[in-house]
Amino acid sequence: MTLPPDAAAQLQDLLGSRLSVSTADRDHHAQSESFHRAPPPDAVAWPESADEVAAIVRICADAGLPVIPWGAGTSLEGHALATQGGVTVDLGRMNRVVEIRAEDMQVTVQPGITREALNTELRATGLFFPVDPGANASLGGMAATRCSGTTAVRYGTMRDNVLGLQVVLADGRIIRTGTRAAKSSAGYDLTGLFVGSEGTLGIVTELTLRLHGQPEEVAAAVCAFDSLEHAVECVSATIQSGIPMARIEFVDAVTARAFNLHSGSDMRESPHLMVEFHGSPGAVREDAERFGEIAAEFGAQGFDWATTAEDRNRLWRMRHGAYHACIALRPGATGVVTDVCVPMSHLPAAVAAAAADIRESGLIGPIVGHVGDGNFHAQILVEPGNQTEIATAKAIALRMAERALKVGGTITGEHGIGIGKRALMADEHGQAWQVMGAIKTALDPQNIMNPGKLVPDRN
Amino acid sequence: MTLPPDAAAQLQDLLGSRLSVSTADRDHHAQSESFHRAPPPDAVAWPESADEVAAIVRICADAGLPVIPWGAGTSLEGHALATQGGVTVDLGRMNRVVEIRAEDMQVTVQPGITREALNTELRATGLFFPVDPGANASLGGMAATRCSGTTAVRYGTMRDNVLGLQVVLADGRIIRTGTRAAKSSAGYDLTGLFVGSEGTLGIVTELTLRLHGQPEEVAAAVCAFDSLEHAVECVSATIQSGIPMARIEFVDAVTARAFNLHSGSDMRESPHLMVEFHGSPGAVREDAERFGEIAAEFGAQGFDWATTAEDRNRLWRMRHGAYHACIALRPGATGVVTDVCVPMSHLPAAVAAAAADIRESGLIGPIVGHVGDGNFHAQILVEPGNQTEIATAKAIALRMAERALKVGGTITGEHGIGIGKRALMADEHGQAWQVMGAIKTALDPQNIMNPGKLVPDRN
Repeated sequence: MTLPPDAAAQLQDLLGSRLSVSTADRDHHAQSESFHRAPPPDAVAWPESADEVAAIVRICADAGLPVIPWGAGTSLEGHALATQGGVTVDLGRMNRVVEIRAEDMQVTVQPGITREALNTELRATGLFFPVDPGANASLGGMAATRCSGTTAVRYGTMRDNVLGLQVVLADGRIIRTGTRAAKSSAGYDLTGLFVGSEGTLGIVTELTLRLHGQPEEVAAAVCAFDSLEHAVECVSATIQSGIPMARIEFVDAVTARAFNLHSGSDMRESPHLMVEFHGSPGAVREDAERFGEIAAEFGAQGFDWATTAEDRNRLWRMRHGAYHACIALRPGATGVVTDVCVPMSHLPAAVAAAAADIRESGLIGPIVGHVGDGNFHAQILVEPGNQTEIATAKAIALRMAERALKVGGTITGEHGIGIGKRALMADEHGQAWQVMGAIKTALDPQNIMNPGKLVPDRN
Repeated sequence: MTLPPDAAAQLQDLLGSRLSVSTADRDHHAQSESFHRAPPPDAVAWPESADEVAAIVRICADAGLPVIPWGAGTSLEGHALATQGGVTVDLGRMNRVVEIRAEDMQVTVQPGITREALNTELRATGLFFPVDPGANASLGGMAATRCSGTTAVRYGTMRDNVLGLQVVLADGRIIRTGTRAAKSSAGYDLTGLFVGSEGTLGIVTELTLRLHGQPEEVAAAVCAFDSLEHAVECVSATIQSGIPMARIEFVDAVTARAFNLHSGSDMRESPHLMVEFHGSPGAVREDAERFGEIAAEFGAQGFDWATTAEDRNRLWRMRHGAYHACIALRPGATGVVTDVCVPMSHLPAAVAAAAADIRESGLIGPIVGHVGDGNFHAQILVEPGNQTEIATAKAIALRMAERALKVGGTITGEHGIGIGKRALMADEHGQAWQVMGAIKTALDPQNIMNPGKLVPDRN
C-alpha cells in the first residue's frame, strides 16, 4: 500500500524531509523487540511540535489513514506496528525537557525523551523519575503502555506518576488533561484514561510527571534461595509485613546462569531475590534488618550487599539486561515474553505452575519478576519461524494468563495489549471490553488512531 | 412531577415497600449538607442487589427517567440532588462487607457501607482503609466523588485506593472493572474513569479496595504559629523535605476559636498545624524530630503531643468537626465551602489571598486544609436566603478558583463538581470538558444517569 497522492503531498508540504517513504525508514518502524511481525507503515513522519502532530492527524483523518505513534520502539506486544498501514508518527525529535519545577517536584517533558535522558537532566535537582521498565523507553510510550518496572512496588506505575497530558485527538484537536495540583476531583480522570490507551485515543505530545526526592540512603543486596517456592514465599511475607521495599525482584536459576555466562556475575545457579531499600539511614538499616530476618526464615543464603553506587548500578544493569542475557542462552532465538500479575497470596502457586509448564515443554524459559507487585515474566526462547516452538510457547503463555484470570489477576501487569494480548481482553474484561470499544468509537469515530489494537473490532 | 404510571407500577412490582413516593422520603433525599437546593426526586428506591439496581435502571431507561444514586448524603456540591426529577436510588441497604482478603490487603464491599463501619469491621485484621474525608460518607459516594481527606498526603485518594468496581450502566448492563492484581496494563483504566464520575456514567454496586497495615506506631501533635503564612510555609518545606507525613492539617485562628467555643479545646487563637506520623517506632521518632526542626524554623510553639489513642481520636474528631464547630460561630448560618488545590509552591500565596478576600468581605470565613496536598477550604458563613451574602461568598469562591487555575491548580481538590462547580469546568478543562461530554454521551445516550451534573449540556 502507498499513501494517497493528496495526503502524501500535504504531508510533504508540512514536513519536508521529515517525512519519509524510504524502505529503510519504513522497515525500521516495522521492527519490534518481540516475535510480533507486521508490514511496514506507508510513511514515517517526524514532527517537532504538537501543532505538527495535529496537522498530521488532520491530514490522515481526511484521507482515512491510520496514525501510529512511535516512541523508542521497545514495546513487547507489537503496540507500534502498522498492522493496517498508514503513517507512523515518530516522536523522537520531540524529546525536550520543557520545564522542571523542582519546588513542586514536577517536570513537564515532550513524549520522545527517554527515561535515562530525563534522569540525567534531573540529576542536579536532587529529584528523580522512578518508573523503570528496564528498556530505555520514551516517556510517551511508557505512558501509552501504562508501564511500570522494578520500582513500582514503592513508587507506583505510570498511572501514579503522570499528573497531566497534552494530547492530540483523532480530529486534530489539542487538549490538556489534569492539573499541576497533587490531586483533583474535577470531572472524569482523562489523564488516567489516556495513560494505558496505547495510542488508540490520541497522541500524547506533552507529559507532566510527578518526581520523587533522591533517597538520602540506598542499600541493595542479592540473596539466594534453594527453591523457587521459598524465594517467592519470602516476597509474599515481606510485602505483607509492610516493609517499604524500593525494589524486590525475583530471578530464577536459569536467569542466574545467563547472568554468569553473559553478564560477568558469579552467582549460585539457584533462584535469587534482588532487593533495594530507600530512605533515611535509620530507616534503611531498620528495613534491611527486618527483611534479613524474614529472608532467613525462608532459608536465604549468601547475602551480597552492593554498598557503592557503582555496585548498585552494575546490579540493576545486570537485572535490566536479563532479557538479552537470557536470549544469549540460545543463540539466534527470540523470546515469547509473558507478563501476568496476580494477587500476592496467589504468587507462589502461579510462579510454580508456570515453571512446571515450561519444564514439561522442553523449552528454555527463564522466569523473572517484579514480584513485589505480584508481576512476573517467563521468557520462552524459540527459534524464529519455528511454528511448533512458537505454538508451544504461546500455549504456555495462554495457560499462565488463564491461571492468572482464575485468581483475579490480569493478563498483563505492565507490557500492555498491543496485538499480542488482544484475544484475551474479553476473557479479562467481559462486557467492560465493549465499554472500552464504545469510548474508542466516541473519541475516534473513523478508527484511525492505532487501529487494530486494544479494543474490539467494530461491528 | 410524578412518575409515569407504567414505570411506577414496574418499580412497585420490583421493590414493594422499598419504593417510596412519600413526601417525607422524597424530602429527605432533597437535603444537602450545603447551601445547594433542588426539588425532591419523584420517588426513592432502596435496592438490595446489583440485579435490582440494574432492573431499576432498565425501567427508568424505558421511561426516560433520571436515575440519581444516593450514598450517605454528605456531598457538598449537590451531587445527589434530583435537579431534573426522577428516581433516587438509595444504596443504604447495600452496606455489607462482601469479602476481606487480608493476605492480599484487599476488601470487597457494597457501596452503601460507611467508612467508619468498614474500619470497625476491619479492626481485627490489623488492616485499615485510610481515605478519610471527615464525614462518615459511604464508600460508593466516596468513589463517585473521588474524595480524599486528611490522610491523602500519605495514602492517596480514592483514585489510588479503588482496585476494581462492579457498575450498572445506563442500559442496565452490569460490568466489572479492574482486577485483584496490584497493577494492570490491560486496556483503558475504566476503574479510574468511574471513580470521580459522580453517578453520571453508571451506579457503583460493588468496590474492591486496597487496604493498608495499621501502623506499628502512631504519634500526633498540634503546634501553633504566629501567622498563617508561617504555618503554610512550614507545610511546603515539610513536604519538600520528603518526610512521609501521615497527616498535616492547617486550621486558622478562627477555626481554633471555634474549637475552643464548641469542641472543648483550649488552643491559642492563632493558626495551627495538626500532624500525624505513622511507621515503625524508629521511623516515627526520626520523622517527628525532623518535622520539629522544620517547624521551629517557622516559629512553631506550644507543641502538644497526643500520645494515647484516645487523645488522637479526640484530636481528629475535633478536626473532623471543624465544619459544624465553625457553623456554630454564627447560629443559623450555612456554609459556602470552597475546595481549591494548588501546586505546593503556590500554597502560601493562595491561602493568604483567600484570607485577605474574606477579611475584606466582612463575613466570617474560617480556613482549614489538607495542606500537604496543596488543598484548602474556606467555609464562608452566610445567612440562608440572604442573597447579598451568598453572592459575596460565591464571589470569594470564584476568585479562589480563578487564582488556583492561574497557577495550574484545580477548582476542586476533593469535593467534586455536582451542580456547584459545573460553571467552572470549561475554565479548568477547555476542550477536554467536551471530551468528557463525548464519553458521557457514548455510555449514556439518553442522558438519564444523574443528568445535569459534571458534563456540558448536550447540543
